[in-house]
Order: sequence, then C-alpha cells, then structure tokens
Amino acid sequence: MELLFLGTGAGVPAKRRNVTSMALKMLNERGAVWLIDCGEATQHQILHTTLKPRRIEKIFITHLHGDHIFGLPGLLGSRSFQGGTEPLTVYGPPGIRAFVETALQTSSTHLQYPLFIEEIEEGTVFEDGHITVTAGKLDHGIDSYGYRFAEKDKAGELLVDKLRADQIPPGPLYKQIKEGKTVTLEDGRTIDPQPYTSDPQPGKIITVLGDTRQCAAAEELAEGADLLVHEATFNADSAQMARDYFHSTTVQAAETAARAKVKKLCLTHISSRYTKEMESELVKEAAAVFEPVLIAHDFLELPVG
Amino acid sequence: MELLFLGTGAGVPAKRRNVTSMALKMLNERGAVWLIDCGEATQHQILHTTLKPRRIEKIFITHLHGDHIFGLPGLLGSRSFQGGTEPLTVYGPPGIRAFVETALQTSSTHLQYPLFIEEIEEGTVFEDGHITVTAGKLDHGIDSYGYRFAEKDKAGELLVDKLRADQIPPGPLYKQIKEGKTVTLEDGRTIDPQPYTSDPQPGKIITVLGDTRQCAAAEELAEGADLLVHEATFNADSAQMARDYFHSTTVQAAETAARAKVKKLCLTHISSRYTKEMESELVKEAAAVFEPVLIAHDFLELPVG
Ligand SMILES: [Zn+2]
Ligand SMILES: [Zn+2]
Repeated sequence: MELLFLGTGAGVPAKRRNVTSMALKMLNERGAVWLIDCGEATQHQILHTTLKPRRIEKIFITHLHGDHIFGLPGLLGSRSFQGGTEPLTVYGPPGIRAFVETALQTSSTHLQYPLFIEEIEEGTVFEDGHITVTAGKLDHGIDSYGYRFAEKDKAGELLVDKLRADQIPPGPLYKQIKEGKTVTLEDGRTIDPQPYTSDPQPGKIITVLGDTRQCAAAEELAEGADLLVHEATFNADSAQMARDYFHSTTVQAAETAARAKVKKLCLTHISSRYTKEMESELVKEAAAVFEPVLIAHDFLELPVG
Repeated sequence: MELLFLGTGAGVPAKRRNVTSMALKMLNERGAVWLIDCGEATQHQILHTTLKPRRIEKIFITHLHGDHIFGLPGLLGSRSFQGGTEPLTVYGPPGIRAFVETALQTSSTHLQYPLFIEEIEEGTVFEDGHITVTAGKLDHGIDSYGYRFAEKDKAGELLVDKLRADQIPPGPLYKQIKEGKTVTLEDGRTIDPQPYTSDPQPGKIITVLGDTRQCAAAEELAEGADLLVHEATFNADSAQMARDYFHSTTVQAAETAARAKVKKLCLTHISSRYTKEMESELVKEAAAVFEPVLIAHDFLELPVG
C-alpha cells in the first residue's frame, strides 16, 4: 500500500496545492486504487501521475465541503469516457447521492459502468478478505468522517523448500502444518509446524481524517496506525482560529498522533497563508510533540508501514 | 473587449487543453469580466491569469454537458471566499439552477454575494446601455445555445476644442450639436453639426457558439460579427463522426463563418486526438474556406474587432 497525495491545500485551490484528494494505491494487494476525497481538478492532477482512472475501485468522501467533492462528477464521467467498465462505489455522508446524481443527470452523463453510492454512518463501511474500513465521526461543524483502513493479518506461508529438505513428503499434511497443527508422519516422526511456516504478517493500518477539531474520535480511529494523515490547517499559534473554523493546528494533530501511538504522522490540508518557507516551522511545531512527522505536498507518495 | 481562452479542449481535460471556458474581458467598457462556460478547473486556470474572480459579473453557459459546467460550483464558492461581494448572474439552459443549487447546498457553501440564476430561452437574454446579448438554439442533441454579444454603437463625441476655436460659445447649443441638430447662433451664424462631432463608433460584435452541428441558427447568430468562436471538434475528414456526435468539423465551422460574413474565425473545443503538430493542418483545412482563421489554445487572448 502506498498513499499518493493529489491535493494538499485547504478551502480553495492554490497554484502550489490543489484541494484535497489522496490515492491509496493497492495495486499489488488488490489491483486497485482507492481515492479519499475528490476536490475539483482531482482528475487533472491524475493526468500528471501514472494512475489509471479505470483502476479506481472505491472513493471515500470524508465530508461534503466543496473542496472535498467538487471533482467527483468530472472524475466519474472521465473514467467512463476513458473506457472504465468495472463497478465503482462512492462512500460518503448523507447528501453525497443527491449531489452526484444531480450532477450526472444535469450533464446527461451516462456512465458505462455500474456506480454505487453508499451513504455512510459510523462503523464498518466495507470489509472483505483483504481489508476492513471503519468510519468515525469527527468534529467539523458539518458531518465529517475519518476512515481507518486496516488490512487483515496475512497467515504465515508454508516453507516448502524446508519441508522437502527435511524429507517431509508433500500431501494433505502440508495443509495441516500450514494451519499450525502438529502432525505425525507415516515414518513415525512428529512434526512441530512452527519451523516450517513463516511468521504471520500483520496487516498495515492507515487512518485518514476529514477536516476536524481535535477530538476523541480521531484518536480512536488512529489507534496504533502505521500512518496517520491529519489535517493541520493552522499553525500552533492559531488555536483559537482553528477552534472557530472547526480545524486543527499542527500541535493538535501531533498530540492526537502521540496519544494514538501511531507509527508516523503526515500533515495535510495546509492553508495557503503558509508559504513554502514557513513549512519547516510547521513541521517543527509538530515534531516537538510527536515524531516521525512530515508535511504532505501534491504528488508526495508514502509507503504505508 | 478582449476574449481570453481559459480552456479549449473537448469532452475531458487533457494536459495541454483544459475543458471549455472563455473570459470576455470588458474592463474598459464596464469594469467587468464575463465568462462563457465553466468547465472543471476553470478557477485553477484563472490562477494563471490576471483575472480577478470578484470582477466576474456574468457567466453564460452554452449547454449542460459536464465539460462546460463542472467548474461552476467551485468558482462561485471561491469568488465568495476571496472577498467577492458584487452580484453575479448565471445564464444557462433549464437545469442549470438545480445543478448549481444542489452543489451549493450539499457543500454548505454560503455565498457572500447575491447569486442570480436565469434559465434562458431563445432571444434577448440581457440588454443594457452598453451591450445586447442574444441567445439562439443550436443543434447538439441536448439544448445548446450560441450567444451573440453586440455592443451598442457609440454616438460621436463633441469636438469641443474645434467649437471653441471657431468661436462657438459653450451652452445648451453644444448638446444640440452633439445630437446632430443644425443650430443658429445669436450672431446669426448657422452651424452644421457634422464637422463638430467625431464619427459614431460601431459597437463590436462577438459570437460564441456552444457545441453544435453546422446549422442555420449558428449562421444567424454570427451574422457580420467581428469575431466568431466556433467549435471544431473534428477535422475535415471526420464529417460523419461530427454528425454522429453532434459536433462540427474545421471546414463546417469555416463555411458558417463565410456565410455569416464574419470578420474573423477562431476555432476551439479541439479534440485531444489532434496533437500540437496536427494543428496547422486543422487551420489549413478551415483557411481553404474562410480567412482569417486561427485555432485557440489555453490562455490565448484575442482583441474583439
Ligand atoms: Zn477542507
Ligand atoms: Zn463540449
């Protein structure tokens, strides 16, 4: 899993940072890409990457502010125009369906693939053999969700070469060994499965929060995550402004990361009032509270874990 | 008046051409800018120009396809966020109101200026002392309009220096001379007004068509225009494709320009199938039928007349 930032600004597009969108790339894991949020011109940003719109399987919307959704109708249309035929599901707060359907109907956009729209509430919004997605409500004036993407642990692999080297013949026993059972061979040997299986691989966890004030729900969603993506619309000095506008400061984001004991924090949704030169200061403010921390920029790609 | 192209592509955004939008700059004439169409990321394109969103007074939508309207909600919101307080009016085919209102309501966008939305039909859609805007229905499968922007003729100016030089004393007579009346002075002289007023200035006319097949309405809207902006989604060889998709070829655009006796033709809405290298060929096809003709590119600015 890798996270590719497509837009890292706040509120309105600026030359250096587009409005919010991220691509969670899971090409090895499931041959698919998921988007989180889709601000205006997300499809334009994608033109500058190797992402293929037809690979986008799911889009998770954190909240309905324009800087997080106005790119959705265009992206959905272009995915069809460019030959996407696989189903796509959009998850988001109630209201997302009316917005998307009105835009597609008004524009006579006829998608060549099945589009599903799921209006979410707190709890598990998707689960399959690979991953579980949980949503929790944050504190942003309007409904704003954070999403926790938790891959399932991968069972250990059978070390076939080692089994053969030790003259353990292939057959149904292999399956039992893989499942961790002690088995007895025809020649009388008793086989402890442990040396013949690799360690199980814990699934990676990434938490991406919508716009929010500091809140307990954020901490809960981020608990132990390999990567936490947290908005930091304001610097440490602007706590009152952050509170008034239902946003967070650098330090508040770092405090949540520390309490949730995440492995890495990435700050995004950076106000255009902060110039490139001021960014190192923003990182410093957060790093005084939690490390490792970095600040996102458009087209930054991070491995998860 | 100058016309600034903000997006000159067809259907979906490409790296070299964004989807459709144009700015009709009338800063000297009325201190305002009007937009024609507003595809996704029009506000992003504006970031690379000197246009101020608060100067945008009116937006004319030719038709409701996504590549002509999906930038509207974001632009309206950002204009407010960036301090626009003057009223703005959007003109467009029926359906534009529901689209804009749903997008603004869903996103909790509260504009700090009065927004008016006028769903148009054929005929005069706006008129004041400076200009008349007429809309006519084209041939594009869905309702698609062309707009004719016709400035009013400017009356001749009174040549005050010349009047004084000829010892004609200031007073109510000046007004009558300006109005073209022959007057008699107290000293008995009879004054022919003609030498004391400059020639009236004919208003400039620009016609911008929405997507369309070749049709009589296009010709009528363009009659005698100083500048005709016509879509040319396809090259001369693709007339059947143009017909099937309700678009025009280079040659069809030029034929309309010739029949309407316009002064200049500018081709736009160019499909991304045509590379930069193929553009001179597109211009040549049109030029065989009508000249002067040129092909638009993003950020091209043309004087009108
Ligand atoms: Zn936001
Ligand atoms: Zn179009």
